[in-house]
Formats: sequence, C-alpha cells, structure tokens
Amino acid sequence: MSYFSSVPPIRYEGPGSDNPLAFHHYEADRRILGKTMAEHLRLAACYWHTFVWPGSDVFGAGTFERPWQQPGDPMTRAREKADAAFDFFSRLGVPFYTFHDTDVAPEGDSLKDYRNNFAAMTDVLEKKQADTGMKLLWGTANVFSHPRYAAGAATNPQPEVFAYAATQVRHAMEATHRLGGANYVLWGGREGYDTLLNTDLKREREQLGRFFRMVVEHKHKLGFKGTILIEPKPQEPTKHQYDYDSATVYGFLKEFGLENEVKTNLEANHATLAGHSFQHEVATSIALGLFGSIDANRGDPQNGWDTDQFPNSVEEMTLVTYEILKAGGFTTGGFNFDTKVRRQSNAPEDLFHGHIGAIDTLALGLERAAKMIERDTLAEFKARRYAGWDAELGAKILSGGFTLASLADEAMSRDLHPRHVSGNQELLENIVNRYIYG
Amino acid sequence: MSYFSSVPPIRYEGPGSDNPLAFHHYEADRRILGKTMAEHLRLAACYWHTFVWPGSDVFGAGTFERPWQQPGDPMTRAREKADAAFDFFSRLGVPFYTFHDTDVAPEGDSLKDYRNNFAAMTDVLEKKQADTGMKLLWGTANVFSHPRYAAGAATNPQPEVFAYAATQVRHAMEATHRLGGANYVLWGGREGYDTLLNTDLKREREQLGRFFRMVVEHKHKLGFKGTILIEPKPQEPTKHQYDYDSATVYGFLKEFGLENEVKTNLEANHATLAGHSFQHEVATSIALGLFGSIDANRGDPQNGWDTDQFPNSVEEMTLVTYEILKAGGFTTGGFNFDTKVRRQSNAPEDLFHGHIGAIDTLALGLERAAKMIERDTLAEFKARRYAGWDAELGAKILSGGFTLASLADEAMSRDLHPRHVSGNQELLENIVNRYIYG
Amino acid sequence: MSYFSSVPPIRYEGPGSDNPLAFHHYEADRRILGKTMAEHLRLAACYWHTFVWPGSDVFGAGTFERPWQQPGDPMTRAREKADAAFDFFSRLGVPFYTFHDTDVAPEGDSLKDYRNNFAAMTDVLEKKQADTGMKLLWGTANVFSHPRYAAGAATNPQPEVFAYAATQVRHAMEATHRLGGANYVLWGGREGYDTLLNTDLKREREQLGRFFRMVVEHKHKLGFKGTILIEPKPQEPTKHQYDYDSATVYGFLKEFGLENEVKTNLEANHATLAGHSFQHEVATSIALGLFGSIDANRGDPQNGWDTDQFPNSVEEMTLVTYEILKAGGFTTGGFNFDTKVRRQSNAPEDLFHGHIGAIDTLALGLERAAKMIERDTLAEFKARRYAGWDAELGAKILSGGFTLASLADEAMSRDLHPRHVSGNQELLENIVNRYIYG
Amino acid sequence: MSYFSSVPPIRYEGPGSDNPLAFHHYEADRRILGKTMAEHLRLAACYWHTFVWPGSDVFGAGTFERPWQQPGDPMTRAREKADAAFDFFSRLGVPFYTFHDTDVAPEGDSLKDYRNNFAAMTDVLEKKQADTGMKLLWGTANVFSHPRYAAGAATNPQPEVFAYAATQVRHAMEATHRLGGANYVLWGGREGYDTLLNTDLKREREQLGRFFRMVVEHKHKLGFKGTILIEPKPQEPTKHQYDYDSATVYGFLKEFGLENEVKTNLEANHATLAGHSFQHEVATSIALGLFGSIDANRGDPQNGWDTDQFPNSVEEMTLVTYEILKAGGFTTGGFNFDTKVRRQSNAPEDLFHGHIGAIDTLALGLERAAKMIERDTLAEFKARRYAGWDAELGAKILSGGFTLASLADEAMSRDLHPRHVSGNQELLENIVNRYIYG
Repeated sequence: MSYFSSVPPIRYEGPGSDNPLAFHHYEADRRILGKTMAEHLRLAACYWHTFVWPGSDVFGAGTFERPWQQPGDPMTRAREKADAAFDFFSRLGVPFYTFHDTDVAPEGDSLKDYRNNFAAMTDVLEKKQADTGMKLLWGTANVFSHPRYAAGAATNPQPEVFAYAATQVRHAMEATHRLGGANYVLWGGREGYDTLLNTDLKREREQLGRFFRMVVEHKHKLGFKGTILIEPKPQEPTKHQYDYDSATVYGFLKEFGLENEVKTNLEANHATLAGHSFQHEVATSIALGLFGSIDANRGDPQNGWDTDQFPNSVEEMTLVTYEILKAGGFTTGGFNFDTKVRRQSNAPEDLFHGHIGAIDTLALGLERAAKMIERDTLAEFKARRYAGWDAELGAKILSGGFTLASLADEAMSRDLHPRHVSGNQELLENIVNRYIYG
Repeated sequence: MSYFSSVPPIRYEGPGSDNPLAFHHYEADRRILGKTMAEHLRLAACYWHTFVWPGSDVFGAGTFERPWQQPGDPMTRAREKADAAFDFFSRLGVPFYTFHDTDVAPEGDSLKDYRNNFAAMTDVLEKKQADTGMKLLWGTANVFSHPRYAAGAATNPQPEVFAYAATQVRHAMEATHRLGGANYVLWGGREGYDTLLNTDLKREREQLGRFFRMVVEHKHKLGFKGTILIEPKPQEPTKHQYDYDSATVYGFLKEFGLENEVKTNLEANHATLAGHSFQHEVATSIALGLFGSIDANRGDPQNGWDTDQFPNSVEEMTLVTYEILKAGGFTTGGFNFDTKVRRQSNAPEDLFHGHIGAIDTLALGLERAAKMIERDTLAEFKARRYAGWDAELGAKILSGGFTLASLADEAMSRDLHPRHVSGNQELLENIVNRYIYG
Repeated sequence: MSYFSSVPPIRYEGPGSDNPLAFHHYEADRRILGKTMAEHLRLAACYWHTFVWPGSDVFGAGTFERPWQQPGDPMTRAREKADAAFDFFSRLGVPFYTFHDTDVAPEGDSLKDYRNNFAAMTDVLEKKQADTGMKLLWGTANVFSHPRYAAGAATNPQPEVFAYAATQVRHAMEATHRLGGANYVLWGGREGYDTLLNTDLKREREQLGRFFRMVVEHKHKLGFKGTILIEPKPQEPTKHQYDYDSATVYGFLKEFGLENEVKTNLEANHATLAGHSFQHEVATSIALGLFGSIDANRGDPQNGWDTDQFPNSVEEMTLVTYEILKAGGFTTGGFNFDTKVRRQSNAPEDLFHGHIGAIDTLALGLERAAKMIERDTLAEFKARRYAGWDAELGAKILSGGFTLASLADEAMSRDLHPRHVSGNQELLENIVNRYIYG
Repeated sequence: MSYFSSVPPIRYEGPGSDNPLAFHHYEADRRILGKTMAEHLRLAACYWHTFVWPGSDVFGAGTFERPWQQPGDPMTRAREKADAAFDFFSRLGVPFYTFHDTDVAPEGDSLKDYRNNFAAMTDVLEKKQADTGMKLLWGTANVFSHPRYAAGAATNPQPEVFAYAATQVRHAMEATHRLGGANYVLWGGREGYDTLLNTDLKREREQLGRFFRMVVEHKHKLGFKGTILIEPKPQEPTKHQYDYDSATVYGFLKEFGLENEVKTNLEANHATLAGHSFQHEVATSIALGLFGSIDANRGDPQNGWDTDQFPNSVEEMTLVTYEILKAGGFTTGGFNFDTKVRRQSNAPEDLFHGHIGAIDTLALGLERAAKMIERDTLAEFKARRYAGWDAELGAKILSGGFTLASLADEAMSRDLHPRHVSGNQELLENIVNRYIYG
C-alpha cells in the first residue's frame, strides 16, 4: 500500500474550500497573459529533501521513518523510493521533478558500482516518467556529501577527486540527457574553503574554470539542448563558496569566457544568506543576462543557515515573479521546490501541506504579478524617471559623445544646478500592495 | 596656538615605554625584508573623519567643537582646517594623507564657486606639502553628500547630475595629479539603490560603466601615472551598492573591459559588511589581479553599520599583511586610516591615540607577517597539499588534455578510490599564533 | 499657505479607488469584533521623523527643505512646525500624535530656557489639541541627542548629567500629563556602552534602576493614570543598549521590583535588530505581562541599522495583530508610526504616501487577524496539542505533585515510550495564508 | 594499540619549541597571581565532539572513521570509546572532562535499558577516573537528539516527554554526583520553538520553570554540592531558544525564584550568535551574579551557525579572562572545550592540535590578563570616570535622597551645564594591546 494512500490527488477547489489537501489558488490550466499557470510556473518537486533526508539535523537524529529509508538491500530500497517519489509527484500534480545521481541510486563501493546502479535506476526513472507523464526539470550530481569531497570536488587539492567528480557529472549529464531533462545544474557545495590558511585561491579558481569548460564542451558533444545552470550560494557548509552570488558568478564566467554558455539557478535562501533580497538576485541575474531557473524556498530571517522552508510570502513572490515575467518568463527553467518540511513535521501529509502552500503562494504571486504587468505603473514610472537619458544630454553621454573634460566644460558653461527629484518609494510600495490586496 | 599643542611629535620609544603618546612598535626606518617599515606600510591619515566630521551621529549632534568647524567665512575656515590637518599629520609622522574635494574646499553655490574654491585650496595644499614633506596617497571627489546626489551620481536618473559629478571628478583628478597623488579613488557611496521598484538596474550599470570609462580615458589624457581605484562597499547609506565586493567589481570591470585599468581600494569594514573576512577580500582581489590599496579600519562584529574604528587586532592584520607581502607589497597603494575616533572621544589627544594604536597594530602585523614569510610554513604546506596538480594527472587536466568523457573513462579504468587527506586547519592556526606570540 | 495644501484630507475610498491619496482599506468607523477600526488601532503619527528630521544621513545632508526647518527665531519656527504638524495630522486623520520635548520646543541655553520654551509650546499644543481634536498617545524626553548625553543619561558617569536628564523627564512627564497623554515613554538611546573598557556595568544598572524608580514614583505623585513604557532596542547608536529586548527588560524590571509598574513599547525594527521576529517580541511581552504599545515600522532585512520604514507587510502585521487581539487589544497603547520617508522621498506628498500605506497595511492586518479569531483554528490546534498538560499526568507535574525522582520512577514503572507527534507547521502556515488571501 | 599511539603525552616545551605536539605557553604548575595556571583555568575536554561526532555535517557524511564508531555491540563500543577518551585526556594533560549521558552509554530501547547501560558505564568512568586522576567538571543529559525530543524536552507539548527527560536528568545528576562532578549543566537545545503558530509561550515557560525547580530540589535532596548551570543559546537547531542569553536567563530565573540556585555556563559561540561579544556575556553574567563556567570555543564571524571552533584569539581571551579574574576567578566552573575539529581535519593528531592551540591561547590570555590586573589601569580609569557617583550628588541620588521633582529643582537651582568628558576608548584599547604585545 502506498505511503501516501491517505492523500487523494490534489485538485483545485478554489479559495472558498476548507480542504487543506486541495489547491486554493493554483489552477493548472487557467490562462494568464496568454499561457496557462502550469506553463508559466513549470513547477518541480525535488527528490533529496523529500525522499532522501531522514529528518535529522546537526543536533538530532531523523524523525521521519520513511519505509524506503529503513535498512535493506540498497537497490531494492532505491526502487521503493522511486515508487514513493513518483506516487507523491503524481498525487501532487506537478509536471516536473529534479534529482541528484546519488538520490536515486546507491553509490556502491566503486565507480563501476556507481555507474551500474545509476544506469539501472535511470531505466527505472525512464519508465516512471513514461508511466506518469512526469518530466525532468533538471538533473545534477552530488559531489559534496561523500567524505572524498570534504575538500571540494573540482577545487579539491587532489586531481583524483576532480576526476572522480568528473565521472559522476558525466554520468549525471548523460542520464539527464536521456531522460529529456530541460537543464543540468552544478551546485558547488564544497567549492570554496574552510580556511584561507590551507587554500590556494588562484589554483582553485583555475581548476573550477577548467571543470566548467569541460562540462560545457561535453554538453555540446552530447547534443544536449538544455541549459547548464550554476547555483550560487555564499557559504555553508564551507566558510566561503566561490559561487557567492549572481554578480560573483558573472565575473567568474567572464574570466573563463563562459558567460554565454551558463546561466544561474537562483535559490531564495541562498540570496538572503548572501545579504541580498531574493528579488535582487533575480533582477541582477536578469540584468547580467544570466537568469535561468529558480529554487523556490525561503530562509528564516532570524537564522543564519539554509533552512530551505517552503515559500509562503505572496508579497515576496509577487515581486520576484514580476521580474521574471518582465524578462519574458522561463525558457528551460522553472520553479523547483528545493524545500523541506520541518523536522517536527513527520506525518506523510506534511509533505503535501508544504508543497500545496508553496504552489498556492506561487500561483497568487503569478496572478498578482500579471496584474502588475497588465497595467504596468512601475514601468511607466521608471520610464518617466530616466527620461533624461533618452533625451539629448543623456544620449550623448551614453554614446560616448563627451570626454570627462568636455562634459565638465558643458556643465560649467550651462551653470548646471540639478535638483533631486523624489523617488516616491512609499507611493510605489503602496501601488504594489494595491495590486496584491486591492 | 595649535589645537594640538598639547601633543608633541610622536616618536618611537619602544615596547617598554609608558608614554601613550609614542609609538611602541612602529619604527619608520627599521628595515624588514629589505624595506623600511615606512616603505612597506605607506601610512596615510584622512581629512574627512578627522577634520570634517563634527562627532555627530544619526541620533545626536556633534561633540567635537573643533575651532575650524565653527561658523565663519568658509574659505577662512578651510585654511584653518588645512593648518590643523597638516599640523596633525606632521606631529603624527605619517608620510601620506588623503582627501575629498569637498573636505578641503567649500562647495559654494555654483560649479564656478566650486572650481575657484577648490583651485585656491589646491594651492594651499601644494604649499603645505612643500612645507611639511607630506605626500598625497590619493584624492577623490565627494559625489554622495550633497542633496543633488540623493539618487546617485553616475547612476542618477538625471544626466545633469552625472554631468555635475563628472565635473567634480575631473577637477579632483586634476588636483590629485597636480599634487603628485599616487592614486585616484572612486567610491560609489550612492551608486546603488534604495528600492528596486524605482530602479532600472540595466540602465544604471550602463551609466556607471560609461563613467568609469571616461575617468580612465581622462587619466591617460592627463598623463596621470597613478592608479585608479574603486572602493567596494555592499550597502549603507543605500540598501545595495553596485560595488558590493571585490568579486562583484571584477565582473563589472570585465563587462566594460576595464579590468586592466582599475584596481581596488579595500576597506576592512566594508569587507565585513559584505559578509567576508578582511583577509578574504584582500586575497580575492589579489587572486583577481585587482589589488590596489587599503582603507585600514575595523567594524564592530556586533553592529551592522560602518563604524570605521581604528584597527587594533594584530591577529587580523598579520594575516592581511601576509597576503599583501606575498603578492609583492604595495606599489602605488598604502594603508590609509579611513577611521574615526568614537563620538565620545572628543579630546584632541584622542585623535592621536586612535592613530598611534592603529599604526602600532600595523607595525606589529608587518613584523609578524615578515616572520611568516621568512620561513614560510604555510606556503610549504600548500605546495605539498596541491602537489598532485603539478604532477601528471593534474597537469594534464589543467592543460586541457582530457574531455569530461575521457577523464571519466580514465577514472573508471584506474578504479579510482581517492581518500580525503586532512587539511590540518587547527595545526595551521597554531602555527600562525606561534608567529604572533612565539 | 499650508505646506500640505496640495493634499486634501485623506478619506476612505475603498479598494477599488485609484486615488493614491485615499485610504483603500482603513475605514475608521467600520466595526470589527465589536470595536471600530480606529478604536482597535489607536493610530498615532510622530513629530520627530516627520517634522524635525531634515532628510540627512551619515553620508549626506538634508534633502527636505521644510520651511519650518530654515534658519530663524527658534520659538517662531517651533510654532510654525506645530502648525505644520497639526495640519498634517488633521489631513491624515489619525486620532493621536507623539513627541519628544525637544521636538516641540527649542532647548535653549540653560535649564530655565528649556523649561520656559517647553511650557510655552505646551500651551500651543494644548490649544492645537483643542482646535483639532487630536489626542496625545505619549510624550517623552530626548535625553540622547545633546552632546552632554554622549555617554548616556541615567547611566552617565557624571551624576550631573543624570540630574539634567531627570529635569527633562520630569517636565516631559508633567507636560504629557497636562496634555492628557495616554502613556509616557522612556527610550534609553544611549543607556548602554560603546566599549566595556570604560564601562562599569554594575554601577550603570544601579543608576538606571534608580532612575526608573524615580519616574514611577513621580507618576504616582502626579496622579498620572497613563502607562510608563520602556522601548527596548539592542544597539545603535551605542554598541550595546541595556534595554536589549523584551526578555532583557523583564529581567531588569524584576531586579528593581518594577515589573508591575512599567510596560513595553515595542518597535518592529528594534525587534529585528535584536535577532527576533516582530511577532516574537510582541508574543514575548504578552507572555511576560509586559505588553504596552507599538512603534509600527519595519527594517530592511538586508541592512543592519534602524531604517524606520513604514510597515507594508500585511503578512507580518496580521500575525502581530492576531497576538494583540488575542491578548485583549490595546488598553492605553496604540500603533505609533515611528517611521520616516526615505531620504530620496522629499516631496510633501511622500509624507502622506508613507502614512497611508502603513495605515492601510494595519487595517488589512486587523481585518485578517479578526477573521483568524472569529474561527480560531490556531487556538484549537494548540489546545489539542497541549491537551496532555490539562490531563492527569501534566496537571500533576505542573502542580508540584512530583519530585524529579518520583517522576522518574513513574516513567520507569510505566515504561514510557513517548513518540513525537507532528507539529504541522506547514499546515498552519497555509491556514494563515488562507485567512489572508482566501 | 591506542588510536593515539602516534602522539606522546603533551608537555610544556616553551615558546621556542618547534614541536607542534607540545605546549608553548601552558605550563600547568606555573604560578600566576597566587595560583597555578591549572588551578586558574580548570581545563576540561568534552566527550561529544571528540568521541561521538563522526565528522558529518548537514551536507555530508562522517569523515573520521574512528574505530569505536564502527558498527558493533553498543556496550563494547562504549567501553572502547571510554578507553580512547581517557587515553586522549591523559595524553593531553587536562585535569577535567565533561559528558552527556548518551555520549558515554547507549540509550537502548527502553528506560530500563537506558538506566542499566548508563549505570554500567558510570562504573567504567569511575574506574577510569581512579586510574587516571581525571576529574569530572560537569555532567549533563542529552534531551534533544532523540526524535522524541523533536518538540523539546521540558517544554514538549506531551507531559510524557517531560517525564522521560526528567528520568534522564535524574540519572545524569546522580551519576555526576557519584563521579564527584563539580557542576551539573542544563542545555535547552530544543527548549524553544520553530514557529509561534503551534507554540504556547506561556505554557512552555511554566513547564520549563517547573523543570528547573525540580532539578534544584533534587540537587539539595541528593546533597550534591556542585553548581547547577544553564547554558544560554539564542537559536539553532530551533528558530528561537528560551535561554537566549545571560540577561534572558536572569529574567527567567527571577520569575521562578531560582536566581540564587542556578548559574550560567557561557559559550563563546552562543554569545556571538545572540548578537553579543563573548566579553559582554561574561561581564553581564558577572554583573547579574550569575557567572558559573565557560564553554570555550569560537564561532566564525561570517557564518551564522554554531561552528564550535577552538578558541585561538589571545586578544579576545585576554579580555574575557580579565573579567573572570576581576570577579574572583572560577569557583566550581572552568574552561571546557566545547569544540570540534573541522570536518576536514580527520587525522588523529588534529584532535591534539585543536586542543593544544586552544590551551596555549587560554594560557596566553591568562598571563596577559594577570598583567592587566597587577597594575590595573582600566580599573583606575573607571574609578576616576565614575568618581562623581561616590561624591555628594551621586551618592544622594543613588541612596534615594531625591525624588524626580526635587532633583529637577536642584538641577534648575544650580543651573547645571554638565559637559561631556572624553571616554578615551582608543587610549584604553591601546593600553590593552600594550599588555598583550608590550
């Protein structure tokens, strides 16, 4: 019997429903700005937090007791886990899922074991996809959990570890390709340092640049049409991670000539750990031409670690979705729930509550953001505010028509006295709230 | 009579001296690693915090009551301020100073006033330099304090404000050039945003890139041989500043092709506000080829704003100075005290105490760092740790000898089982402490 | 002509109105849970941020140029300021205001000047109140801005400064009493330290305890029926402030036997600076029997200082208002806007936009919180969750029926195997969102 | 053969020694201020981080592979672990150790198992103590790791969990008593909340107060002469913990009348997570009469979680030790190393490097702090600074000789004009550095 048998497939029942195991705002087929909600949001659930993590934390053991996490033959358990995962995905009704290689298959004791186990489980996933209609938003390789990666994967002081990681990434890319994945993600969980005292920053950057280059070349050789994504994170478990934030990733990609080959997978909780709002990271990636996909979650504003909670702020997601819609929406990316239920939430239904709340939050954010765009008061305001840059003086400056000296002469001869004009921040904040609550 | 007449010129008296108005560790002419302490540290005191700021904060009025800050004819006061500043610099015995245009000369009511006042005060400074032997580490323009800059200077929505700032920067660069300045600094105090709701990130980046380009071209046209420096800061007074940290500045410079023209002026307190250790920012700028100069101060680890306190941790400065010495030391840069006495420290002597403690801290840091380099155990450790990258497998990977697939095949055929080797962080930390306290 | 003449009195026009200078949700007379919105919220606007602050920050001069802030005879300007303030309050339509002594009257050059100026301005305020119907939510004394208070007021190392502060507080209390104030507030802006090196914690605690005691006794002697409130803040401008948060204030009051005499005035931005959510501080003060009043504002989650922005999160204010309503609502307290427009928002209308958005946010929060209480699913959930504590074992434990040993014996003899029951956090979060967005 | 056989007993070899496996500053028998270093510092090593933790973190598996952590009969492994632990303690040469009940004995499957296993291992520990001369600084019970404690122990919504925890605490107290422990510690790792939505703050406070009361009564019943200690921590793993910091604990103890029965065990990393300097927490506990013992470690200033690193800042520990010495030094408390080697430091020697560095850091801190006290310039400064409070006006205020009104009258009649006197923070900071580096 299914672990989730107490939970019927989740349906849209509308805002008036009292049923907690239903969507109140997410109506997959409802059309907004010319696309369905499902097409806009491209929702994905993840394998790791929901099916691999046992509910442990640094101070305590797992509380979940999922049947597929009990002792037993690893491949049998992996198949049971896949059964449970696809059962869950299907009941939840999201179109996409995401995984790490070692989420779905046991690592075994050697690279050969790894390859064989993973190949066997890729077959299983392929069949599951066919049976359920689920699609793969992205795959990735876990090159940070095994003790061999304690000092990083691509940035490890030992090239053998780099080679081991390369093997995993190659197989994870190929599995992703075979499973029709829309993207492939690189998260540098331990590509960083614990102390500068034993770290050669320059060498490690070179290693990481070489690794990214090899990944991009392999993508082209495979004929994989998906997007390669890097997921910025500033720290944890390392003291400092090289992919700190969007702006850092941009500089890194420019250094190695990869800025047109790789995009970002942005996580809300990583943005806030880096000292940025989530909207900032999305807007920055867009401005840099890097925006790819989203790991939708939230952190706790009072806690300094990655809590990976389900997003529940419509206020925040409206602004984020507004940025994404303005930039044309997702292409290969989507909203992946890199989220976990709290360790105290150990009932099977809790997994549904977490995802349902998150999905309704995104649906509300989409609906409100679409209203913001239908009559785009913010864009009108900005157009007026920067109008001078489209007029004569501004255009001439931007097009290189002045040197510093000639512009200074111009300013002096015009006896310029520019005065600050209000930025009307409070008015604009009110306008956003009227879109949300009006 | 001098405001500082109670303070005799500060001399080196050695660690045993009980005189608080003496150096206990900084001996300008003492040679370390082939250069004098003065040549290594290139110490500078700043104009703004010490001679312009009245001791106010957001919650209270100025406590300092400096004579030159009293009401009166602005140019007379500016001359009195210059007298006090050079009197202070000379008594303190640092070789360099630094200033903003509006620190030294009144802005007046128009660009013409500005130009004339600043020109007159540049004459005064030139004469002061000749009289005292003081040199200019760098000059800069204050394009953030006047209300016209409330929405930024180069990134302002009004091109007239950009033009106004360009005028100030032009004159500040030319004054710096005339005064023999070793560098020219750009700090984007309000180049950022308070809210994304009224901000066009893409436009503002373009404007800022154009501004930097004009500055670099003007430098070459002037024949100024000093370095153009950008000072990263993540926020404050803005919510977000575009020059967040070294890695962000690097990406920005790469985007506009300026990475060989501009270097960083790193401030300790800005590093920590950005979520980095000071050592990290220095090491990162060095690894990116961007390292230029230092604003030596410290923040308060418990306070989330720029406290600009005097550096007093030998433990921290030893590591920072080690990085700088390993990278060849300063060229045009130096240690500038972008520091202020506490608002409660309103006695004239307090200005000396702050600087003396900071200078002794840097001197101790230099001495300890030099010991670390004389027998460079850390470098030996790192060489051993990364040795694999200089051997066959590593070298072949780095030189492009493998594709992802061929490297995976190699790993598989060798049946690699790399094992983590201890990074010995605690041992290395102990070694550093033995250099400091041994 | 009025500075605010461009702004008509603000009226409720409903969610459908496009008029930004109207309330969309705040309908003063609308009844909710038996009281009008106005009676529930007890809204107050403050004097200092809106009429005293010139729009300066640490890095720049004032941008606001209010007429009453121009140079001139201080008492004339104070009267003009009062005209502007009451004009603003009336147009805005809030029932209450709040002030510091030095906001409304010039300090002058001596205590006599202070007393006379303040007495004259209290007459002005009294007449203004009579003319407009405005009421005073609370008064307070500014004993932190003048240089004499650089090292604190009650905790100053000089008893003369304590005496000076006592004089101000006495007069501010008496003015508050005369003006019918509902509360009197103590904010210890500099009651803390910049460094422990020059601070005697024990002495300063004693001094502060003595001060509070004198204030409480004076209240009773005056016959003032309002509440004495302490406003916790963890830091800024000091490194550490003694009134760190609610729990700290509770300990302090217990030490000096004042826990039944004083309550808290909680500020959202102070809560977050102390590492707490705003809801936490409200819930904690309520649990400790300390809850008094609110300074409604918000901080910036990415900035480490007191930004005093207008509240605009309905999601946050719903939870806060739910706590307050559950505890019986305000008695003498209210929601005071200790908020300032951004320095860039220098138009007169911006002052209205800020307050209107905040008021609508509180109105929405009240409406949603009232729905939460009408059918209080959270309370039902908690009642079930803790039911064991009302049953035999729990009740016996709490009433002292067991010693540690006898309870252990009981557990052993029953061979207890308690199992964790899900806390259903995600479900509860969804329920809250359905109250807000359902 | 011993796991640590490569490491000879650690001896004092002096600052000149190049041997990393020796003390360079800690000389156990050296007398300072009338006591030996060993008597002052009362050093303890802990069981959990060093012998229980496998080197895992949230993102990765254990890297340590200690023999006693391998699969096997739990009691056999527990005995091997005790062998390794006392071998380590003895080679290291610290006089004290600390443990949780479940560190030393397997929990088993029932309370009876627990009791029996723990009793058997207490016998083992007793014998080990006799054989090695090691003493117990404190014992404690782990009532936070098992899934049953996911929602807290004393503050759990189920009284059965409270009863289970009471059983463990009872046995841990009795074992501590039997083993001659100098203290008993309570750490409320999950006494707090993850969300206020499912939490009844008032009930949970009552439960916790009742628990503490039972513990204190049991201590007296047992005749245990040691000190009951509470260890404040603000958060992690919970969102918020009730024992936030010293000031919060003080209020809690006052509420339940326990302020003379319980003291604090202060941890450096918990202090910084709470937004305080470590020195602040020590000074505050001392000022409140709560100071008991220290968990000596450090956090990472850039990481927002408990990193439990070994203390290595002499600058910080000098100030902390100065506070402790001024307060009379430890009575029953000591410096316990609640510290762990980095996950990357998986060599047996790393455990020694970590502790050796920490011990030398404390020894240097002690030596420097003792110098500060021998000629106590800071105390002299403070005495002068607060002298007015010992003179007429100050003494009269403090002794209740004034009402607010009569003090205001006095101030007015004297026409007081107090002026701020410099706090000389920079001078004092320099003085401290001269004690450290002079």
